This record gives sequence, C-alpha cells and structure tokens, in this order.
Amino acid sequence: MAAGSAFGRSFKVTTFGESHGVALGCIIDGCPAGLALSEEDLVPFMLRRRPGQSEFTTARNESDMPEILSGVFEGVTTGTPIAILIRNKDQRSKDYSDIAGLYRPGHADYTFDKKYGIRDYRGGGRSSGRETAARVAAGAVAAKLLAASGIKAAAFTRSIGPVSIERFDPLEKNSLYMPDHDAYEKASEYIAELRSGGNSAGGVIECVIEGVPAGLGDPVFDKLDALLAHAMLSIGAVKGFEIGDGFATACSTGLDNNDPFTSDEDGRIAKLSNHAGGTLGGISDGSDIVFRCAIKPTPSISLPQQTVDSTGSKRELTIKGRHDPVIVPRAVVVVEAMADIVIADALLCHLGDRTDLIQSKKD
Amino acid sequence: MAAGSAFGRSFKVTTFGESHGVALGCIIDGCPAGLALSEEDLVPFMLRRRPGQSEFTTARNESDMPEILSGVFEGVTTGTPIAILIRNKDQRSKDYSDIAGLYRPGHADYTFDKKYGIRDYRGGGRSSGRETAARVAAGAVAAKLLAASGIKAAAFTRSIGPVSIERFDPLEKNSLYMPDHDAYEKASEYIAELRSGGNSAGGVIECVIEGVPAGLGDPVFDKLDALLAHAMLSIGAVKGFEIGDGFATACSTGLDNNDPFTSDEDGRIAKLSNHAGGTLGGISDGSDIVFRCAIKPTPSISLPQQTVDSTGSKRELTIKGRHDPVIVPRAVVVVEAMADIVIADALLCHLGDRTDLIQSKKD
Amino acid sequence: MAAGSAFGRSFKVTTFGESHGVALGCIIDGCPAGLALSEEDLVPFMLRRRPGQSEFTTARNESDMPEILSGVFEGVTTGTPIAILIRNKDQRSKDYSDIAGLYRPGHADYTFDKKYGIRDYRGGGRSSGRETAARVAAGAVAAKLLAASGIKAAAFTRSIGPVSIERFDPLEKNSLYMPDHDAYEKASEYIAELRSGGNSAGGVIECVIEGVPAGLGDPVFDKLDALLAHAMLSIGAVKGFEIGDGFATACSTGLDNNDPFTSDEDGRIAKLSNHAGGTLGGISDGSDIVFRCAIKPTPSISLPQQTVDSTGSKRELTIKGRHDPVIVPRAVVVVEAMADIVIADALLCHLGDRTDLIQSKKD
Amino acid sequence: MAAGSAFGRSFKVTTFGESHGVALGCIIDGCPAGLALSEEDLVPFMLRRRPGQSEFTTARNESDMPEILSGVFEGVTTGTPIAILIRNKDQRSKDYSDIAGLYRPGHADYTFDKKYGIRDYRGGGRSSGRETAARVAAGAVAAKLLAASGIKAAAFTRSIGPVSIERFDPLEKNSLYMPDHDAYEKASEYIAELRSGGNSAGGVIECVIEGVPAGLGDPVFDKLDALLAHAMLSIGAVKGFEIGDGFATACSTGLDNNDPFTSDEDGRIAKLSNHAGGTLGGISDGSDIVFRCAIKPTPSISLPQQTVDSTGSKRELTIKGRHDPVIVPRAVVVVEAMADIVIADALLCHLGDRTDLIQSKKD
Repeated sequence: MAAGSAFGRSFKVTTFGESHGVALGCIIDGCPAGLALSEEDLVPFMLRRRPGQSEFTTARNESDMPEILSGVFEGVTTGTPIAILIRNKDQRSKDYSDIAGLYRPGHADYTFDKKYGIRDYRGGGRSSGRETAARVAAGAVAAKLLAASGIKAAAFTRSIGPVSIERFDPLEKNSLYMPDHDAYEKASEYIAELRSGGNSAGGVIECVIEGVPAGLGDPVFDKLDALLAHAMLSIGAVKGFEIGDGFATACSTGLDNNDPFTSDEDGRIAKLSNHAGGTLGGISDGSDIVFRCAIKPTPSISLPQQTVDSTGSKRELTIKGRHDPVIVPRAVVVVEAMADIVIADALLCHLGDRTDLIQSKKD
Repeated sequence: MAAGSAFGRSFKVTTFGESHGVALGCIIDGCPAGLALSEEDLVPFMLRRRPGQSEFTTARNESDMPEILSGVFEGVTTGTPIAILIRNKDQRSKDYSDIAGLYRPGHADYTFDKKYGIRDYRGGGRSSGRETAARVAAGAVAAKLLAASGIKAAAFTRSIGPVSIERFDPLEKNSLYMPDHDAYEKASEYIAELRSGGNSAGGVIECVIEGVPAGLGDPVFDKLDALLAHAMLSIGAVKGFEIGDGFATACSTGLDNNDPFTSDEDGRIAKLSNHAGGTLGGISDGSDIVFRCAIKPTPSISLPQQTVDSTGSKRELTIKGRHDPVIVPRAVVVVEAMADIVIADALLCHLGDRTDLIQSKKD
Repeated sequence: MAAGSAFGRSFKVTTFGESHGVALGCIIDGCPAGLALSEEDLVPFMLRRRPGQSEFTTARNESDMPEILSGVFEGVTTGTPIAILIRNKDQRSKDYSDIAGLYRPGHADYTFDKKYGIRDYRGGGRSSGRETAARVAAGAVAAKLLAASGIKAAAFTRSIGPVSIERFDPLEKNSLYMPDHDAYEKASEYIAELRSGGNSAGGVIECVIEGVPAGLGDPVFDKLDALLAHAMLSIGAVKGFEIGDGFATACSTGLDNNDPFTSDEDGRIAKLSNHAGGTLGGISDGSDIVFRCAIKPTPSISLPQQTVDSTGSKRELTIKGRHDPVIVPRAVVVVEAMADIVIADALLCHLGDRTDLIQSKKD
Repeated sequence: MAAGSAFGRSFKVTTFGESHGVALGCIIDGCPAGLALSEEDLVPFMLRRRPGQSEFTTARNESDMPEILSGVFEGVTTGTPIAILIRNKDQRSKDYSDIAGLYRPGHADYTFDKKYGIRDYRGGGRSSGRETAARVAAGAVAAKLLAASGIKAAAFTRSIGPVSIERFDPLEKNSLYMPDHDAYEKASEYIAELRSGGNSAGGVIECVIEGVPAGLGDPVFDKLDALLAHAMLSIGAVKGFEIGDGFATACSTGLDNNDPFTSDEDGRIAKLSNHAGGTLGGISDGSDIVFRCAIKPTPSISLPQQTVDSTGSKRELTIKGRHDPVIVPRAVVVVEAMADIVIADALLCHLGDRTDLIQSKKD
C-alpha cells in the first residue's frame, strides 16, 4: 500500500523527506486556480515552526525557507499541483554511529526496523519532527485559501505540564505561545527545572477555527471531527484529541451538554452554548470549532535510559546533543496547519452537496 | 465529493442506510479469499449492539439480523465484495410531524439541513445511531479475519458519569459491559437517577487490542493511532480519543513517559511499560494497543429544551418516546468493530512493505 | 487491496454480487441532494440490458427490477448513499458440476482460481456479464443528474462483425441498436449464420455525449479520455477504446488532424471539426464527446473446445445451454451507463477548480 | 477535487511541474523497502525520452537528469516516499507573447482557460509533453522493482503513418525504436517529407510485458486492462488503446478468438494462443501482456492554421521554432514507464488476495 504520505481528498497534500536527507517538501494537488500566492505567504508559518525561537527550543542550523516549484504563475495559482521544496543543510555532518543500532525509548527506531527492515537513522529520518515542516508549508497555502472565505484557525498553548492558562489575553505574545503572562512565567520555570535535570515536559494545544460555515463535513466516516482527529493524531507527539467539551462530556448530562438553538430577529439560527465544539453529527454548525490535542513530553532526554540494540542486547543509552525540553510551542503551528488543511479540504468537498448549487454554476 | 461513506484502504467498508428507510447495510471490498464466514459469525456482534438488552436500553422492535448477499461461496469468502443487508421493520409506522421541522439540540437535524437542504427526519435518518449496525456487521468480518492471525480487540465500559471501574474483572458480565461489579452497581444507580429526572449520562469506553504484530501502521498521515482516532470520532457520540496515557502525558515527563526496551534470553524485544499504548511513531510496537473514547450523554432527553424550527422561529421541544439514558453500553461493540476494521486494514496494507516479502510470495 | 469494486471520485459507485448469488447491486456515494429520483427512473435502463429482447439474446428468467434501499426520501435524493438492490432468482436451480472444474476458454475461470484460490463457478460468478446490471442501475442515476445539466450520452451499435452502419438514422429502432436498417438486416443474417454453426460474433459500439461543457477532466492522470478508457475497458468484453479519430490518427497528419478554432458573432468559440472527439489535453472542449469500444465475440460457444481442468488434465469442453451469439446489443446500455458515471463524476469534481467559483457559493 | 495528478493505489505516483517552470518531478509513495536504487538506475530511461536523439526530435537544451531527494538510504529504498526532482533550465528565456493569447489547434490552451480561468502558457505548461519526464523517472523505479520479480515491459514503434513493421528484429536499433530496418527507412522518408512541408505524423506503439504471473488485476472496475487503458490514455498524444487482438476481435468469431488451454507434462497450464493479450476477466493469465496505443500527429506544425484568441477574435497562427515532426519515438519509453507503474501497482495490490498468503507472512 502507498505509505500513507497523503492527506486530504479535494485539497490533497503528499509529503516526502527525511530529517537529514537531501530535502523535504510536499505536493498540493487540488488547490483551486486564481489564488494569489508566493513564497512570502509561507514564511511567517515556517518561522513559527523554526527551532531556536526561545530558550527552550534548539538552535540547530535549519534553513526552512521553502521554494515553490510549480502550480503558481505570475503570482497566482493555476489549479495544477503546487510543489514546495525545503532543502536540508549539513545532512551528512554528524556521526550517528552511537545511535544507529540502538532503539531510543519513545522513538520510532524499533518500529521502523520491524516494519521496513531498514531505517534512515540520521536524526529520526522520516519520523523526525522535521517532517512537519512540509505540513506547515502546505497549511500556509490552505490558510490563504480559507482567508479568502473568511475562515481562520488559531492554535495556542493551553497548558504545559500542570500549568494551564487561566484567561485568554490576545495581546500576550511569548515564545511558548501561551496567551496568559502568569501562566507563561510559571511554565517557563517548570520547563527550566525539568531541563536542568535532563528531563522534558508535555502539554496541551488548543485550536479555535472561526468563520466556518454550517454544512462542512460528511455524515458518517468523514465527519469533520473525525478528519480533525485523524489529522492531529498524525502529528508525531500527539496522544489525544478532544472536540468541544471532549472527555468532560463523559461526566456531564444531556441537559447540560446539549446546546440550545436560538435565533435573532432576522431568523439567523445559532447555538446558545458550544459544548459540542462546532459540529453536530460530524457537520459544522456555524459555531467556532474548538478542539484540543495532548502532546507528550519530548522523548529525547539526556538522562540515561535502559534499552536494547538491534540484536536484542540490553544497553544503556544517553542521548547527547541539545534537544527541546518541550515540543509544545513548536507544535502549535503544526496543529494550526493541519486544521487549515482539513477545513480547506472540507470546504472544497462540500461544493457538490446539492443539485441546486451545481445548476447555478452553469449560469 | 463522495459523501464519506467508506472507510479503509485495503479492507474497505462502504455503508448505506437510514434509520427508518427500507434497509441499511454495507459492502466490504478487499476481504481476502479463503476465510470461513457465515451469517452466524455476525450474530453475536449484532446482539451486543441490539437495543433492549438492559433496563437502560430501549426495547424498540429492531430486527438486526444480517443477510450476506455476496462474496461468500460454500461458506468461504471468495475475495469479491461481501454485501450485508439489514432490513428495517415498521419504517413508516410513526408520526414524525412533531419533530420534522424542529432542530433537536445535540442532534444533526440543523446541520443536515444546512448541508443538503433536505433531510430524512424519521428517527434521525442517516445520523441515527442505527447506522452503526452496518459497522458492527463489517467489524464482525474483520474480527474473524484478525482471529486467524491471533489478533483480538476487546472494548469495555471504563466509566459512566463519575463512576469509573477500579479493577478489571474478566469474569464479571453485566448489561453495562463494566468489568467491575461494584462500579456497575453504582453506575446503575447513577443512570437510574438521571433517567427518572428525564436526563441522560455519558461515559468512557476503553479498548485493548492484543496480538498485533510490530510493524502495522504508516509513518506519517496514516499512523495507526491516527486511523484509530479517525475511526472512533466517526462514531456519532464520541467526543474524544486518547491512546496509551493520552491526555495524562501532558503532565508527565520524558523520563516517566518513555517506555524502556528490554529483551528476554532469546533476544525477543519488548517494552517494560506501555505508556505509549502500543504504537511508536504511528507504527505498532508489539505491545497491546490501548485507547479510550469519550462518549457524550444521549442528546435525546425528555426534559423541555429551547430550540428553533427550520424557519428560525423559537420553539420549546419535548422529545417523546423511550430513549436510552446512556448510549455507552451499546457503543462498546461499535468501538470494538471499528477497531477491528482499522487493524484488519492495516494488516493487509502492511503486506507490501518490504521487497523480501514480495519475493518470497513468488516461491 | 480493496478488490477494485468502486469507480468514481465524487460520484462513486461500489458494486457487489455474483451471477447466481443471492443478489447484486451497488452503493452510489456522492450523488448530490435534491435530485428527483425513483425506481421508475431506473427501469428503462434495466430493460435495455435485459436478456430476451431479440432473437439473438437469451431468454433466461432474470428479474432485473431494482429496489432503492436508501438515500431517497419523499422522491428526492438526500445526499446520503443510494443503495440499489437487484435480487437474483433461481440461484441454486442448476447443476454446474460439468463446468465447476473446467477452465472455459475466453472466460475468467482460470484467472480467478490463480488469483483467489477459490471461485464461485455458478454462471461465471463475479465475472459474469450479469454484474453489469448494477452498473446500469447506477448509470441511470448518473444520467438523471446529467439531464438536469443538459448533458446526454447515447450509445449505439456501429458494427457487428464486418457489417458497419453507413448512415445514422435516428428513427431506426431495432433489437441490435443499429441505427441503419440495411446494416441491421445484414448483421442479423451474419449473426444467424454464426449461431447456426455454434459460433459467435463481436462488434463495435460508439457513444456520443452531447452537452458537456468545456472544462471537465483533469490535465494529467485523470484526463477525461483516460477515465472513459478505464470505464470502458472495465466492461468484461471490451478489448479496445478510441476517442475521436482514434487509431486512424496514426495515419493522419497534424494539418488534417488538428481541429481549427472559430467563433460566431457573439464571440462564442467552437471547433470547425472534431477529430479530437471532444477533449483537448484531457479536458472537454465543448464539442460532442465521441468514442468507440471494440467488443469481442461471446466466448460461450457451443462448438467443442480444447481446455484443461483445475488439475491441469487436458479436456474437451462443450458448453451447453443457450448463450447470446453476440453480446454487442446488450452492451450498448452498459457503455452508455459507464459514460454517464464518468461525466457525472467529472462534473462534480470540476466544482472546486477555481477560487472565484467558491467565493460565489458563499453569497 | 484533487487535480488528478496521482496514479496507482499501492505504488502511487504523484507528479508536478510545468514545462517552463522551476522544476518538475514526482513522489512515489508505496515502493517497498529493500530495493537497491540510485539515480544511475533512472538515467537510461531519461535518455530514451530526451529530445535530440534523432534527426526528427528537437535538440532543445533540456537537462533531464533526475535527483533523488528522499526515500533512499545507503543505496536502498527505505519504504518512505521517493521524491525525484528534475530542474528546468532557461525557463524564462523565451518570449511567449505571440502565443499567450492564442488557442493553438490540437493543444490544451483553450480547455485550460475554460477550466481554470488562467494558464501557464509557456511551452504548454502542465499540458506539455515535458510532463512525461516525471512519469519516466517513476517508471524506472517501477521497472527495477519488477525486474526483481522477473517481469519486464518493452515498448516499440509498430507503425508511423502508413508504414508498419513487418517483422520484429530484436537486434535492430534505430532512433525511431522501430524493430524492422526496412520499415525504419521507409518511415524516415515519410517523416522527412511531411516535415519539409511543415506537417507532422502519428503512429502506433506496441508494448509487450513478459513474466507477469497469473492473478494480477481485479475482477470489476480495476481490471488490469482497464488500468492499462487509463494509464495510456493519460499520455497526452494517445487517442486509442487496444489489448490483444483489440479492435480486430470485432470481426473475429468466438471460435477463432478464444484461446484454448493446454498443459505440459508437469501439469503447468498455458494458453495455445494469445488473442486475449494476456488477461482474462481483467486478471493476468500468465501469458505475455500485449497492447497497442494510437499516437496522434504532433499538433505543433509550422503551417498556418486558423484559430481564435482568448477574446474570441479569429486569428491566423503560425507556430515558430523547431518541433518534433513525430512524437512516437519519444513516447515509446513513456508507454513503457506507465506500463511498469501499472504492473508494479497490481503486483503489490495482489498481496492481500488470499488468507493463506497472509498467514504464511506470520511465520
């Protein structure tokens, strides 16, 4: 089977590339013609994912500046596939002999070997977080398409370890993407302490998508929430997904959890609350779409760990080098990018839902 | 776009049918030839989903007995599509005029109208829980295929409202599928109380899949956990998914969350713990796969609710008739069925991973 | 892999069923909501495929009347999957022991055994021409959708054996679907002679699709002509496909084969000729789409044939019973149905081609 | 909808790129791990497609040397996507203002404008024959995978204009890929004459695939011949496809067209003839697969042609520059590459056909 490197039905993204190979990138097949697009549109997204932004993210020498190879002519998309290339630098500079034969706990080394019998062990290869650079580039294109329809996804750090935000301050800007200055300071202390002990932290990312019209998503297997869950769990460090009140609904009741409908004087229908998180029966209901992702602690820690090598011999492993003590801040834009791709795809898939919409296209 | 009624790549299930239409069912395309299969294999699964099993599930007159229409010859699958038909009974017996124009809170009435401009309002139509009968039938076929490879998924009720199991008693059998007799009794009281007040409850379902070999799942978008999340969120009442320690990993550390590798005297590699829940980098690692789903409280409650009709006029709605005060017990087998489908699909997709495996097929 | 039982991307048809199993049928996923549809719309298509229409088609007792199981409510499609069921009659009435172990020349008995290791040998099973009944039912739905956009496909018999039509008389109606009465008479004689000798004939079917707007089809792999070729070669007896001047272009020149463009006083652009057959670069150009399919002679002949059994022993085979001495007339509606499905699919896929079209949908 | 830039289910090729854009290339998703592969494997295929090989193919300055960006580690495929990049040279060097607004007869200029409302007019953009360079690179990978299973596709020129080969001389090498020296000389004269008059020629390419085991291909929509037809008609200049005796079967009879089965003393089954061209019921039968494609005359001719511009005004067009007077010789390797992709895909899809094959994988 095709190795699961594509996502989306109408807005379809196929990615390639290993952490320390020649390059990584993607092909977007299905972006409509007529969208103004240039590499400058991608840069702000790439910068948010880039390492070295804060004291808690590594300052490796990565050049994430993407090159658009096709599908854009005179600054406008042509409807043909948009290929985006991101070259890797210094891909052969390091000696990996110490980890080439060892299975790092929390990493995919062992499972790749069992699946493929061979593995590009340099920096995690295909399973490296660097793979998400291609997703972010594609997400930037999706975001631009959505902006033209008044739709915007925005993700942020809801919690790091035990420290959660207690309010949402839209003016607060910090390197943890945590919109509550007090929480940011507490989280920084928490991470600093773990890092000094050679350990790492996890957290929760929340994403809010505004402006989604009612009617996106399909009734059964391709519910909008199912596609979002698929997209989010496809990000390496994500271990959980919930929409709206999510796991808390398990302790709620029907009366409390149901969102009553109301209408304004013009007959426009809306919900009075949004426990559902913006979908009903898997189809967007016109409310904000709100979901959260659990991010596990970075598996690369500098403490000694028990493991085995590829022959099955027990070994002790100490991972050298600098690693992010928390992946959450850099994953924020990845979550947002994948949300953009899901919604752009659903927007295009929606176009054939009704006969009357097709007829009007003829005129 | 095709209306999202298919799931799976190699073991592909396409379902059809409305709650109160003529029939519902599915086509399974891609089940390998040579599997012994009959309608008797499906019956135990269908019975677990059937209403009226406990005092908390409705006793509607549904005949869920499936008929296999194709793909099986002399008791063995032939490799051609397996169509399964489940007739609905009494599909025109009820008067729906009271709800035809009203948007029930927590239901998909409003979103279907916004999407399609038309809706089969009888009993929820395509968005009814009855749609899952077709999934359960398909899951039973997947389960039989997996059994031949020594793989078995088993789901159970982990909690209902605030009542969680505190131990796992494999001998405990009860109508809530809750493997802890004390928890079962407390949960029963909890549900009874809510029901007497016209309200409803939610809960959490856990699923454990044993026997999955290492190497299933794809590295990027089609991670095994991503496919499971997609499958679970495609079930109407599911609002959250987590694998392994899930959302708890957000508060854990790298040291605690990483699962060390070990090996036995024969060099067989295993993990010392299973915080990951059975996958690493989206690929099965040979441990049990463990995940949980949050189930929202049944939206059909008999308390009065504020809503609007399709013209936008405000209305008060009181839903008549009997409805399950908790959907969790009946959803257990649906979760299990979808897990079976995901793993069967991944098992078949895995077959082309390695050149050496292809070569050996020639001999 | 899923066993190739689905066709189409947006208008997606999945079929099931064996010749002498319980039933056959299909699920159409992706038909837009709002289309008036009933079983009566399918009947004229089913009748054209039905055996026993002419002296040259068998009068087996088949009941091809389809039952719509889902996706239609109060006479209108709802956007959810449309399942169509066609029951087989007398599926166990015959003794197949004489052919169960023999490989009939020109049939798929041998290849099914090599592929699946098992085969439903009753009447050809899945490889029987009866499988096309499900396609014709689906094609009737596609045709109704196309009619609402002013598009119509019409297929006819261009030749049988060496007898080709020399003119196209739209008023001529005959059981060979050959729109030239002289040719019909000559072809009838040709077939009668072959049949009396226990032999069979082939022919060519042509299909003209009117009203297709310019712009359908994709530029590379999913060219409209490529999808038509795929659809046509998926019909059992089809051995060749050509569009426009087809194989004759190999002997033409650029000057003769290029279709010059012209325009009328309103600036409407059209081609002065149609050697291309209605597509340029795989995309419809607004001209009629014209293609032809080669149909091989019926492989079931009553003359003795040399073959082997499943153990590899040489055997002589004489096929008993009545068989169509020519399959062409009954295949005409199958060609048309598949053409309808391809165009309906392309029409829906086209909707997301341009940003400006999406924007206007919002208003 | 995704713009149809992907082909294949298990061995899936997605291409991108315009004729005069930055680059073109492809991603192959699903190539099994463990295949020795380097850029040197691609070169012989690329050279066969390269312009300037004969006096009848243009000597434009194209650098078709591909760069493998991912999916290969230490000379062996890893199972992850293989991205291949081919840079374009001098992509902005020419003045296209003379044709930017004109619709060239026989080209896709008009249909791209109608579909997308915008068009990269430089050298044909996405609809240029240059797009096939990415297919040829992907086909080279497929060919290497097939070689490991003893399968080989070989295409050649069967005819150019009215000149057909009369014998197949495997030792004959010429720039028209025509394996009959006399025919080569006559065809050369034919082309030279047309070229001197500013005109162009078409032809027929035949492809023979040896070593395909019985059992590849699916019974209904994804018949092996249907996939081959799809692949071939997706090549820009192909106007027809036939397998085995193809269109000639329309004039044959069942007795003559059926291929009798026989067996040798070891019980190995084979056909005594191969009118079918290697498939029965859409599944390979173990014989050589033999098919032919009709190639239309190059539409770029230097004679004046009648056309219109994008405003609908009538114009006379004279195409300047050098153009191949016949595209057939360069298309030979494209036909072969697409055949390789189809068979590699079918080989991988076949792996899940039978339960017994899955079981044996466990051991």
